[in-house]
Amino acid sequence: MGLRTVTDANAKNSVVLAPAELEARLRQIGADRYHHQHPFHLLMHEGKLSRGQMQAWALNRYYYQSQIPIKDATILARTQDAELRRAWRSRIIDHDGDADGGARGVERPGGIEKWLALVEAAGLSRERAIRCEGVLPAVRYAVDAYIHFVAKKSLLEAVASSLTEMFAGSLIALRMDSLRKHYPWLAPGLAYFEGRITQAPADAAFALRWATEHAKTREQQELVCDALRAKCDILWAQLDALYFAYVEPGWPPPGTFRPETFAREGQSK
Amino acid sequence: MGLRTVTDANAKNSVVLAPAELEARLRQIGADRYHHQHPFHLLMHEGKLSRGQMQAWALNRYYYQSQIPIKDATILARTQDAELRRAWRSRIIDHDGDADGGARGVERPGGIEKWLALVEAAGLSRERAIRCEGVLPAVRYAVDAYIHFVAKKSLLEAVASSLTEMFAGSLIALRMDSLRKHYPWLAPGLAYFEGRITQAPADAAFALRWATEHAKTREQQELVCDALRAKCDILWAQLDALYFAYVEPGWPPPGTFRPETFAREGQSK
Repeated sequence: MGLRTVTDANAKNSVVLAPAELEARLRQIGADRYHHQHPFHLLMHEGKLSRGQMQAWALNRYYYQSQIPIKDATILARTQDAELRRAWRSRIIDHDGDADGGARGVERPGGIEKWLALVEAAGLSRERAIRCEGVLPAVRYAVDAYIHFVAKKSLLEAVASSLTEMFAGSLIALRMDSLRKHYPWLAPGLAYFEGRITQAPADAAFALRWATEHAKTREQQELVCDALRAKCDILWAQLDALYFAYVEPGWPPPGTFRPETFAREGQSK
Repeated sequence: MGLRTVTDANAKNSVVLAPAELEARLRQIGADRYHHQHPFHLLMHEGKLSRGQMQAWALNRYYYQSQIPIKDATILARTQDAELRRAWRSRIIDHDGDADGGARGVERPGGIEKWLALVEAAGLSRERAIRCEGVLPAVRYAVDAYIHFVAKKSLLEAVASSLTEMFAGSLIALRMDSLRKHYPWLAPGLAYFEGRITQAPADAAFALRWATEHAKTREQQELVCDALRAKCDILWAQLDALYFAYVEPGWPPPGTFRPETFAREGQSK
């Protein structure tokens, strides 16, 4: 695996990277482009967002959460590899849960249900989140771009686009601390993050191993890197939309969530 | 056509609108949501955008222009109605032109080629625009959302999403005046707008007539209105992305166009 071969005259782009080297490049992309350093997250972690801004975040991010099983089912539906399907299906189970107790009769809320608890803790009704009413169009377009990416690009790129989870663990740990500290009224809604602390690193480790094994040429390794960049862009664009609509200059587009009008349905003050 | 029928108990939502009434509703949606009143356009028309901001606009909007024939071909490919196909194909011809002289041997630049002239007049190379290098991800997602909309919604909604052209005529006339006045260096690049002054109203009249005839129930008429709203959102989101990246707060996402670095390839000062 550590062997390097030169397959064409352009040595720089044709040398196959060793697994550790590919991983290092992926980690550099994360350091540069993952949304941990987006100003909206920085404000959130410093406790500088208002309740209305946190509501907008919870509501809009719900749309992303709601589409994750669709994204993962799209990947499942594309592969003839039962091993990959068996590994990948846990993501769908983690997100959709067993609302009716499932085969084992044990009711386990999934990530989507847990996110709805966060929406409610923020003071919005779950029904409004489920209707996706007032979600920013730019957030919708970015999330839908993710679905289209995994549907249309190669399976390798589809799997690689999930590699942002390599960087999720430390962001989630930091976030839980800061949410508890600065937004104590969100406490009943933090189960989502507790679940992700173990799920995200496990999912990321599998996807990294799979992508590393299946990217056999340098060209394929570059596609893996590009897929990670594309996914970072998708996450970044969602926070851009939130920041610009609700922080600065604070212009939610026509027909989207306005914190003041939503406050009335808040379940806690 | 002016006849009203009540098809269910909910009179408000079941009364079929007369054509003039439907048109009035569509015009109201345009007045409320079309991007003529987006702050980025207002600044542009007041002459308050810098050359770099105008470059960013020309570059990003090029991506939209480049996808219009794809959007129109998607509509063509969905209908068995040869009359609709014959009418609609003129849009593809208007945008793609006859670069090689076409059947009649007359070289006619299309809308995309004319937009590239605008990009060059703004001081960027056509090659960079064609590569779509540095286009804002949020603009890409919005434009791609338009393609997916016409591919996945009903044909009626796909046609109706073009009705923003009902409002393009007056915006283009205003824009040509203000571009000539405030950005005289753009003068060699205004042929695009000259063409659209006649094309847009003709296209809009056809689409309005077609949508009016094919929306036979109130429910279908509401779908027509919703499609126009959805398209307004798509146009609005593109300007939001431009405004937020290049005006206020002025944060282009990682990997996107930066006016200063691009200035070097400017063809005029």
